[in-house]
Amino acid sequence: MRRRDFLKGGSLAFGGLLLTPIGTKANIIKEEFGKKKAKNIIFMVSDGMSAGTLNMADIYSRRKLGRPSHWISLYEDNLAQRGLMDMASANSIVTDSAAASSSWGGGHRVNNGSINIGANGEEYLPILQKFKKAGKKVGCVTTVPITHATPAGFSVFTKNRNSQEEIASLYSELGFDVMMGGGHKYFDAAQRKDKKDLYSVFRNKGYAVARNKAEMNAAPQNKPLLATFDEDGLPYSTDQFSSSFIKNNIPTLAEMTSKAINLMKDHKEGFVMQVEAGKVDWAAHGNDIAGLLYDQLAFDDALKVALDFAKKDGNTLVVITSDHGNANPGLIYGKEVNNNFDRIQKFSQTNEWILQGIQASDSISTIKDRIAQANAGIKITDEQAKEILSFYSKAKREDGIYNPRHLPFKLLSQIQQEFTSVGWISMDHSADYTELAMYGPGSDQMKPFMKNTDIHTFLLKAAQVENKF
Amino acid sequence: MRRRDFLKGGSLAFGGLLLTPIGTKANIIKEEFGKKKAKNIIFMVSDGMSAGTLNMADIYSRRKLGRPSHWISLYEDNLAQRGLMDMASANSIVTDSAAASSSWGGGHRVNNGSINIGANGEEYLPILQKFKKAGKKVGCVTTVPITHATPAGFSVFTKNRNSQEEIASLYSELGFDVMMGGGHKYFDAAQRKDKKDLYSVFRNKGYAVARNKAEMNAAPQNKPLLATFDEDGLPYSTDQFSSSFIKNNIPTLAEMTSKAINLMKDHKEGFVMQVEAGKVDWAAHGNDIAGLLYDQLAFDDALKVALDFAKKDGNTLVVITSDHGNANPGLIYGKEVNNNFDRIQKFSQTNEWILQGIQASDSISTIKDRIAQANAGIKITDEQAKEILSFYSKAKREDGIYNPRHLPFKLLSQIQQEFTSVGWISMDHSADYTELAMYGPGSDQMKPFMKNTDIHTFLLKAAQVENKF
Ligand SMILES: [Zn+2]
Ligand SMILES: [Zn+2]
Repeated sequence: MRRRDFLKGGSLAFGGLLLTPIGTKANIIKEEFGKKKAKNIIFMVSDGMSAGTLNMADIYSRRKLGRPSHWISLYEDNLAQRGLMDMASANSIVTDSAAASSSWGGGHRVNNGSINIGANGEEYLPILQKFKKAGKKVGCVTTVPITHATPAGFSVFTKNRNSQEEIASLYSELGFDVMMGGGHKYFDAAQRKDKKDLYSVFRNKGYAVARNKAEMNAAPQNKPLLATFDEDGLPYSTDQFSSSFIKNNIPTLAEMTSKAINLMKDHKEGFVMQVEAGKVDWAAHGNDIAGLLYDQLAFDDALKVALDFAKKDGNTLVVITSDHGNANPGLIYGKEVNNNFDRIQKFSQTNEWILQGIQASDSISTIKDRIAQANAGIKITDEQAKEILSFYSKAKREDGIYNPRHLPFKLLSQIQQEFTSVGWISMDHSADYTELAMYGPGSDQMKPFMKNTDIHTFLLKAAQVENKF
Repeated sequence: MRRRDFLKGGSLAFGGLLLTPIGTKANIIKEEFGKKKAKNIIFMVSDGMSAGTLNMADIYSRRKLGRPSHWISLYEDNLAQRGLMDMASANSIVTDSAAASSSWGGGHRVNNGSINIGANGEEYLPILQKFKKAGKKVGCVTTVPITHATPAGFSVFTKNRNSQEEIASLYSELGFDVMMGGGHKYFDAAQRKDKKDLYSVFRNKGYAVARNKAEMNAAPQNKPLLATFDEDGLPYSTDQFSSSFIKNNIPTLAEMTSKAINLMKDHKEGFVMQVEAGKVDWAAHGNDIAGLLYDQLAFDDALKVALDFAKKDGNTLVVITSDHGNANPGLIYGKEVNNNFDRIQKFSQTNEWILQGIQASDSISTIKDRIAQANAGIKITDEQAKEILSFYSKAKREDGIYNPRHLPFKLLSQIQQEFTSVGWISMDHSADYTELAMYGPGSDQMKPFMKNTDIHTFLLKAAQVENKF
């Protein structure tokens, strides 16, 4: 209880100053868990979140919303433990999302691209299967396909993360309680190579299937739920703001998180779920500041849902982290940095929206207008617009993991830098240790530096589930 | 003591596994400080250290030296508290070093460029003056001029960080106990505008003056010490390896730290000192990976000196942090990232050394050989060498805070990226929250998120020195 004596509820009172009352909520919450078991675990992943992404979302929250981000506010209120996590994979200092999620999910480092399969074919049982066997309800929620690497690493083992149709099939065998996100095309008979209607398979096993927000909301309490809200990844949060169709049909990450909790919270044995903001990573791959910032903020809103539940519940461990850095974005020193950063508050569309909507036949002024419309009126030059356009006549091309059309994502972010003060080191993952925070029973046992694979045992132990599987 | 029950000395023992003995050193050290007073404080600053800088130094340590960095090992052994720190200045989201050090040193946010002077001329008494008045010995140690922003922010107030001759004069009035670093030209009668011989002033006040390593080592216990080992900043650690002149004449940061501790450790009232790795920042401004990495490692060695003393002493608070991010360097995903990063182990010179030694009359092959020699044999192309050379005929130029000759630092780092996998967002500071760690009495009172200005009161309080000045 020394913390109380000194901090007096977070205020560094000193000398002649009056002290704020001791034993405020902040301190009590942090210390009251004792040796309690984590009946429930909510594992929150902002995929590909570099330090600067967390930082910019917090600065945005303070400057625009007048409060810290929910993540940083956990620190400010002294409610969470924090640490750094080494996310290296078996074959590289810099992990991909498959090996990253496997390190937590299966407890072993595997090669990049693999999901819980070792270099010699070893199969590592994923943690949600262990928790399911232990009697808990389990699930995953994400803004990318539910068959994508991060949920898959908690759920299945398979050689190649790219076999998403196979992963969907594997899911149909698991009996998990909530699987929600994008990725319709991997379940849809018309689009699958084997022409199998996976939705029927799930329905026959007792699942409710939701394809939009209303159906999600209507999903009954007594059935497991499979929900796919879009063909592949869900739209960026930024682009949701300007589309009432999207807003009406596709839930936010916070809404999905809330529904998932509601479906599982009354289970006697508790639940374990993973919540992923997968498009934070995609935006970083695109050096797409509006995509990145608003999806990180959407993650922060989902975090609030999880924390509100955990604070009320008292038996829920919330783990908050990322699986690797990506592009190491940061706000760069300069006279205009404050104004430039605040300008992003008025960005109404992502770079994804800007670039996917341009056609080879567009005029220079169409390009300029489109960017001005999306980016709070910024004025790019004719030369810049011309260079962007040259990518549509295939005179130039960029490559990138989420850039099949070879559009000028890098070029656009370089053009924007003058107006945003945001820089990027690359369009790919970085080796930076990731931020790790925990709230709830077991959290005080966390060390300030952890190896990714330690998380596996840590979660089982926090839940007092024996690792006998 | 719950930590012990669960972690059992850092090992996440589980199920049928044997537990390691409880109450190991790691846990005991962390908890034994109780309400102890921090008699001594060592404040360690790696200037301009982004998350990736800390990360790369740790990866280097593990892969090359077979052990974690001393900084990360504090976390692994669960010995330190850690947090993030918001370093914004009064007028900008992104601080400079003057406003940053002032926020700690004077306890107030000032505009970038100012040292403990508010926007309306307010003068904030710096923390080392407060500690001096409280009876402690105080000092600063740095690898840049001792008159530079970071030591100055703990020591004086003055409108403009660039008035380093004036800062040197102010120092002569302070009676501080140790001032060690670079910056001879700001003390030297021949080079000062006022032609004042500041060394004489110091000597007349009872100081010993050292100008090289031998003189530093010989400095007597009973005198305060002023030491300037070079004209401006000290050489990069990397360049020390290959110069026996430098090695013999200029102490490492660890050696300076050790001497400073020895000069002050027997003082009955204790001591407070700042130790700065100032050239980590300069290297980041130059996107100079060998400069950055080896100076961060030199900082880590100095940290070990401080920690070894603190562990033995038991009454010393060690604060470890940075004043802002810079260039957000990071290792980028790719097949060759492991090999590329390991190649840097064999880099023998900085980019500073490479570029300062090139002349307009050099041949293409001279350039290529010079870079191969410094960078473990990498082969750049004729076109790349030609482009580098074009900067020396003034056909092209780069600007930068520590680049008066307008040399191609950015270009060189872009050329190197293929061989190093290291990327940079810019050549300037970033807004990223900085890493903050504490070991020793008072450290357990730290919150996981702190505002820079809170540090001021925190240190006074940890030392139980009243803020009455
Ligand atoms: Zn990822
Ligand atoms: Zn600095």
